[in-house]
Amino acid sequence: MRADIITIGDEILIGQIVDTNAAFLGKALNKIGVEVRQIRSISDDKTAILEVFSEAQNNVDLVVMTGGLGPTKDDITKHTLCQYFDDSLVFCPEVMTHIEMLFSKYVKAPVNDLNRSQAMLPSTCKQFFNHHGTAMGMWMRKENTVFVSLPGVPFEMKYLVGEYLIPEIKKTFSLPVLVNKTMMTYGLGESIIAEKISDWEHALPPHIKLAYLPNLGRVRLRLSAKGSNQVKLLNEIDLLFNALYPIIGENIKGFESEEPIEQQIGNALISKGYTLATGESCTGGTLASLFTKNAGASAYFKGSVVSYATEIKQTVLGVSKDLLAKHTVVSEPVALAMAKGVLQQTAADVAVATTGNFGPTKGEADAEIGTVCIAIITPKQEFVETFCFGKHRERNLQKTINKALELLHGILVR
Amino acid sequence: MRADIITIGDEILIGQIVDTNAAFLGKALNKIGVEVRQIRSISDDKTAILEVFSEAQNNVDLVVMTGGLGPTKDDITKHTLCQYFDDSLVFCPEVMTHIEMLFSKYVKAPVNDLNRSQAMLPSTCKQFFNHHGTAMGMWMRKENTVFVSLPGVPFEMKYLVGEYLIPEIKKTFSLPVLVNKTMMTYGLGESIIAEKISDWEHALPPHIKLAYLPNLGRVRLRLSAKGSNQVKLLNEIDLLFNALYPIIGENIKGFESEEPIEQQIGNALISKGYTLATGESCTGGTLASLFTKNAGASAYFKGSVVSYATEIKQTVLGVSKDLLAKHTVVSEPVALAMAKGVLQQTAADVAVATTGNFGPTKGEADAEIGTVCIAIITPKQEFVETFCFGKHRERNLQKTINKALELLHGILVR
Repeated sequence: MRADIITIGDEILIGQIVDTNAAFLGKALNKIGVEVRQIRSISDDKTAILEVFSEAQNNVDLVVMTGGLGPTKDDITKHTLCQYFDDSLVFCPEVMTHIEMLFSKYVKAPVNDLNRSQAMLPSTCKQFFNHHGTAMGMWMRKENTVFVSLPGVPFEMKYLVGEYLIPEIKKTFSLPVLVNKTMMTYGLGESIIAEKISDWEHALPPHIKLAYLPNLGRVRLRLSAKGSNQVKLLNEIDLLFNALYPIIGENIKGFESEEPIEQQIGNALISKGYTLATGESCTGGTLASLFTKNAGASAYFKGSVVSYATEIKQTVLGVSKDLLAKHTVVSEPVALAMAKGVLQQTAADVAVATTGNFGPTKGEADAEIGTVCIAIITPKQEFVETFCFGKHRERNLQKTINKALELLHGILVR
Repeated sequence: MRADIITIGDEILIGQIVDTNAAFLGKALNKIGVEVRQIRSISDDKTAILEVFSEAQNNVDLVVMTGGLGPTKDDITKHTLCQYFDDSLVFCPEVMTHIEMLFSKYVKAPVNDLNRSQAMLPSTCKQFFNHHGTAMGMWMRKENTVFVSLPGVPFEMKYLVGEYLIPEIKKTFSLPVLVNKTMMTYGLGESIIAEKISDWEHALPPHIKLAYLPNLGRVRLRLSAKGSNQVKLLNEIDLLFNALYPIIGENIKGFESEEPIEQQIGNALISKGYTLATGESCTGGTLASLFTKNAGASAYFKGSVVSYATEIKQTVLGVSKDLLAKHTVVSEPVALAMAKGVLQQTAADVAVATTGNFGPTKGEADAEIGTVCIAIITPKQEFVETFCFGKHRERNLQKTINKALELLHGILVR
């Protein structure tokens, strides 16, 4: 059972948007055992779309496409489907009723002709009713290939995938089992890990594949297995991963199929009855935003003081002028003092503080670009360390976030 | 001059990572007038890669691929290139010297055999020397098509694109001119705009194309023009966009080809001599992180108090217990009091404060899910408004951020 994902839109090809729909669809299909052969992003252009349809026809069992279903002139997917299937658009009164309801509820304008055209659908399609928007999903079969068209708005697409597409695929096709599990490691480079685990890697059975996914201070190891029995495959993978602990155990920080590291930290805080606050200079609120993105963060996250200007470190966090003068703003004593100030201001139990210079120019402290101090205080310990990450602002932010989460995880979870 | 972008890696197909490389390459190629025909993401699989090479051969002038150049067993791009070009790998001593230098400088481990294999390159390739990593870029020509292979690590790929790929393309091909410009509008739906501007849209000349890019409360309008004279095309596009002001002028908030909205706000603050601080409850530091991501934010951004827990609103921001009891935590008086507290704590000139309930459950305030109050105080005015965004946490965050930026822009820039 193989599928192609097609995302339609010039905005993807000219790099105006990053295509997150393809990643979502890839994950959703992989999870139920559909192997994605390829992802293709193409232009809002009838010829281009028809060519890709023909290439996929009978080469894959399923084509899932997103985009080009809006009400405006540049949206041509529906017309192209009609041409490919030799079909025509028909008016669907129940869709029109739904569009009118949406407009009366959310839009301060009457339904116009463009919106009305959203109620026209190919006569032979199976409809995926989109309760969250005006563009319906469509399922159409030609010979051995099913073509599915979904709106490009991520939220509406995701709804239709969960509600209709996945159940419909399960009903229509007989699916093999694909299992992926990804181990997170921090602190070793890709080639170092590969050398350490090379005996283990060479002994992998042929139906299990290993991939290395390196990214700024962490390397993820993914095992993918294909077979017929999910429980058996999962057991096999678990046994294989277990065999890595004696080799690189110190660097293993859980699995990606579990929660992301900030949620693991959150769970550890809840189980210990601790609350968390952050004092952020160079990370500028990014740590706080990562924690608060997750529903349920209010159970442990108290708040943050983003002391971007040096004076805020003094006025809000109570870092003394003498300390700043003596050690400069990017220093371990200042990072620790910031963490203490955060604990005092928020009455949290655990604090993380960051101060550093991400570049591109040297700051007032004259610290080398890439120098970052991270301090962590818990009821049981105080920790502070200085890192030299490099010259590039964007990477320095990501590396600091990764390192702060790794350190917090190490202190709270291990 | 047409190009295909190929990104190689199972991690893309199973949705483990979002492919940002393709978007970066699309933007870079489009900027110099290369039309991207398609983006294809395929498996780390020799047959799949060779098939895509054959399909691109002589159908496009250029194929740019990323990924599969790492030192480990799952990286097969180099071997596949050799097979397709009937070439073989040769040892490059200057690459080896560079790898040894990188290891002695950054890695606490000796160079191993896997790293050494990174110094083996196809004998006929033109090398793009990667000063930031061990995987070199490669440029190889077969008949009428150039194949370029770049590492998948975004930072290294970006370096090679700017330093080698773009200059080499300009030297090798004669390029047409492509011009894109995107207008930002806030506050009107896609179909409403389309109806209002339909006369204008129908009168567009054939070499200029319009696209609507809707996203949670804002719609971007993109004009793309193709021709030979950049100045002439830009003038044409500007004249066309100017004609939209009498129709939807109130909703236009600048252009995307300029800085993003938060940078426009930053510039307005600097020119007025104002500083900014944020008081964030529901947005949890995301507003602060958006401003501080940009180099130069320290010229106007003072800091933020993320008062995620209600008590922090009292203890740090000085919101009175009575006010909270009387109006509840998600209310306009509390949002205003938070903004005032932020001004007091940070001595900034302008403050934005957010308080709301993003869901998925009702909070302690019993505010409907999706209710958000945004307050803005400047030296000249106080502003506060309540919004009802919807039921979905992730979208509520994005809508609140978009709305807060739109409001700040409206107050400071217009």
